[in-house]
Amino acid sequence: MKRILVLGAGLSASSMIKYLLDHAEDNDWKVIVADQSKALAKNKIAGHNRGEALFFDVFDRELRTRLISSVDVVISMLPARFHYLVAQQCIESGKHMITASYISDDIRNLNNAALEKDVLLLNEMGVDPGIDHMSAMQVIDRIRNSGGKITAFESSTGGLVAPEHDNNPWNYKFTWNPRNVVVAGQGVSKFLHNGQLKYIPYHKLFSRTETVDILDYGKFEIYPNRDSLKYKNIYCLDDVKTLFRGTIRRPGYSKAWNIFVQLGMTDDSYFIDCEGLTYREFTNSFLEYRKNIPLEQKLADYIHEDLESEIMQKLTWTGIFERKLIGLKRATPAQILQHLVESKWKLGKEERDMIIMQHKFEYTYDDMEKEIKSTMVVKGDDPVHTAMSITVGIPVAIAAKLLLQGRIKVRGAQLPVVKDIYEPIMKELAGYGIRFVEEESMVGEVVN
Amino acid sequence: MKRILVLGAGLSASSMIKYLLDHAEDNDWKVIVADQSKALAKNKIAGHNRGEALFFDVFDRELRTRLISSVDVVISMLPARFHYLVAQQCIESGKHMITASYISDDIRNLNNAALEKDVLLLNEMGVDPGIDHMSAMQVIDRIRNSGGKITAFESSTGGLVAPEHDNNPWNYKFTWNPRNVVVAGQGVSKFLHNGQLKYIPYHKLFSRTETVDILDYGKFEIYPNRDSLKYKNIYCLDDVKTLFRGTIRRPGYSKAWNIFVQLGMTDDSYFIDCEGLTYREFTNSFLEYRKNIPLEQKLADYIHEDLESEIMQKLTWTGIFERKLIGLKRATPAQILQHLVESKWKLGKEERDMIIMQHKFEYTYDDMEKEIKSTMVVKGDDPVHTAMSITVGIPVAIAAKLLLQGRIKVRGAQLPVVKDIYEPIMKELAGYGIRFVEEESMVGEVVN
Repeated sequence: MKRILVLGAGLSASSMIKYLLDHAEDNDWKVIVADQSKALAKNKIAGHNRGEALFFDVFDRELRTRLISSVDVVISMLPARFHYLVAQQCIESGKHMITASYISDDIRNLNNAALEKDVLLLNEMGVDPGIDHMSAMQVIDRIRNSGGKITAFESSTGGLVAPEHDNNPWNYKFTWNPRNVVVAGQGVSKFLHNGQLKYIPYHKLFSRTETVDILDYGKFEIYPNRDSLKYKNIYCLDDVKTLFRGTIRRPGYSKAWNIFVQLGMTDDSYFIDCEGLTYREFTNSFLEYRKNIPLEQKLADYIHEDLESEIMQKLTWTGIFERKLIGLKRATPAQILQHLVESKWKLGKEERDMIIMQHKFEYTYDDMEKEIKSTMVVKGDDPVHTAMSITVGIPVAIAAKLLLQGRIKVRGAQLPVVKDIYEPIMKELAGYGIRFVEEESMVGEVVN
Repeated sequence: MKRILVLGAGLSASSMIKYLLDHAEDNDWKVIVADQSKALAKNKIAGHNRGEALFFDVFDRELRTRLISSVDVVISMLPARFHYLVAQQCIESGKHMITASYISDDIRNLNNAALEKDVLLLNEMGVDPGIDHMSAMQVIDRIRNSGGKITAFESSTGGLVAPEHDNNPWNYKFTWNPRNVVVAGQGVSKFLHNGQLKYIPYHKLFSRTETVDILDYGKFEIYPNRDSLKYKNIYCLDDVKTLFRGTIRRPGYSKAWNIFVQLGMTDDSYFIDCEGLTYREFTNSFLEYRKNIPLEQKLADYIHEDLESEIMQKLTWTGIFERKLIGLKRATPAQILQHLVESKWKLGKEERDMIIMQHKFEYTYDDMEKEIKSTMVVKGDDPVHTAMSITVGIPVAIAAKLLLQGRIKVRGAQLPVVKDIYEPIMKELAGYGIRFVEEESMVGEVVN
């Protein structure tokens, strides 16, 4: 019997654990789920005879060693900063590790040690990063193998609310870590456009969007997503002239969110004393003092919009003008804003999320310029098995299965950009509704 | 004979060392100037029989101990991060220390140790911080003692070029550390306006200026200078409704500098590989790709200005459009921009700088609302004894004299906000042309 250890039983682990339990009997697996909350782990196991729930504390060295030594593969769904601790133990004990997180330099540096111990440290095995790599490399390798030369690669992803539950003026709800959404894009965003390096400072990010149609889901907008340049090496796109990663939202989101950015309400670098402070006062602290002018009018003037404009309606809807106590003691502007929008952008119990991913490849082939768009749309099943949980968890689970079945043979610190990994996984993902639709055309004109 | 140790013989120490040597004979002093470059120290002594030049390395503990133990007072003109090392030794050896830098928490925490050893650690003894504290407290104490209640305090300072050498489109030249000017205002600026806390994010700072007339020097503009709120405690301004610190520039400077900020060219958080890169390409990396549109036109369009506008002339004058190699290997945008403007905003050999400081106090007295403006304008004597060197160095030197003469009796970690310190110093500063002109009026109307 093979033993799988899942560290962390949070929301993101739900679909993954279900997959493992569903396949446990056929493969003769034991699935051990270990969490800080044994109750949560037990809840995920749901009484399955192949499952076992345990308490886990990542800082307990003895427990860490004992648990990891007793299994065949470790899936770490812990916060990313703990993966290195787990990876070190995995190498010491000669066990494989899979995570859905970005590879860190520390883990990259374990490559040789992992190879020596015949261990695979498989990183970025979720959706973004994860499915993005696999689905992109599938097309990239196909174009290359047929003699094409890739000149442009653009790839965007968005965690959104499903259209049937899209019922607020922002056309957005939190489907994942709200904090990441509130501070998204802080720092500088970098990409390559027709051979030119481009840098966009945070305060200009949400005004540099472009609008696209995606399949028959209607219009979306895309803003740049941090450092796109690193994908040049990961995908070996040496000759590419355009390289862009983006985040997908519904049209209008960025223009309205940009007002928060412009005002300074997403700043996470200093603390405000919030006792006795209302959201209205919080908002007012970012606008000039003007005698006898209501706050709403001040803001409308500041952004050169009418009081009744769409953007003012979005802003008003969040509650930033309300004379309601914030209810925090001391918080950064970003924390205060998150606290406010968390209650508004909440996905209801019966509501479903939706993940969209779209790649665009431009390539030359026989002196022709061609374009392929490859698009995935996944909707959640229910409040537990959300699109996010499915697309993060199923690839991880399949990777574990293939690894235990001896069908993934690469070792060392890896990303799923090699064919031996992405091909079988992409094939099986299709069975779970995670599939890409391709549209091929001559550049600038959709023919299919 | 009393012995004074000056650590650091850079530009900012010139006027201070001259003052000490000029007063050495009368007071029976020995002035020991110690620097990493003994030649520089020697140059500042200029053969004076009361002076002595020594080599100094702040990291040489033995040398530090020996030098500090052998004197009566230490003036540290070292970079601010080294003051703590010096202060620790001063306390150990029971010697006084004076610096022109902002007090650090570390030094503030030495207060009790200093009191025990009967030592004065006198910080913020230059111009800003320094003269600002002394001149403000002089007026604040006077208003209070006459029964007035201060409701508003605004204070601004600018290091500028003297009008007779003000001959570039920015009406600005570097007169101090260029790096501080390039990254000025990064983070958030905070102030109080009519009882309301106001926060301005960096990317809005240079569009939140106000224009003022200063004496008969013409028009200036003022932008907020970081955290104004801390002056509430320092000056005990408990009832103040408006509290604002600003930086003074000539009109138009901020609007043009703001373009660099908006583009992201003052970002100091990431590195660009500059090899083979021209300033034109650098500038282009912050603007959208547009086929066949010249860079100048793209920028003009971006900022909604005419190609021939004043602001475009300022920007063009800096050289940001030039097809000239940057000549650095790897640098942040801020470092690249500094490298460019350093060659343009250079104060010529025969040119003089000018420092302007203006306080505005609003107060109530017998139900009347009154206002006092207190203004200092100091021009440099020559390229060595600049206004900056004079206003930083002379207060430090006078403080050392008064301390050695037993006329400053406070001990512990101090700022020059107490009458025993500021009164004699302000009196003597007037003799060096460092004096404040007062304009008193009823609020809103200048009568004097």
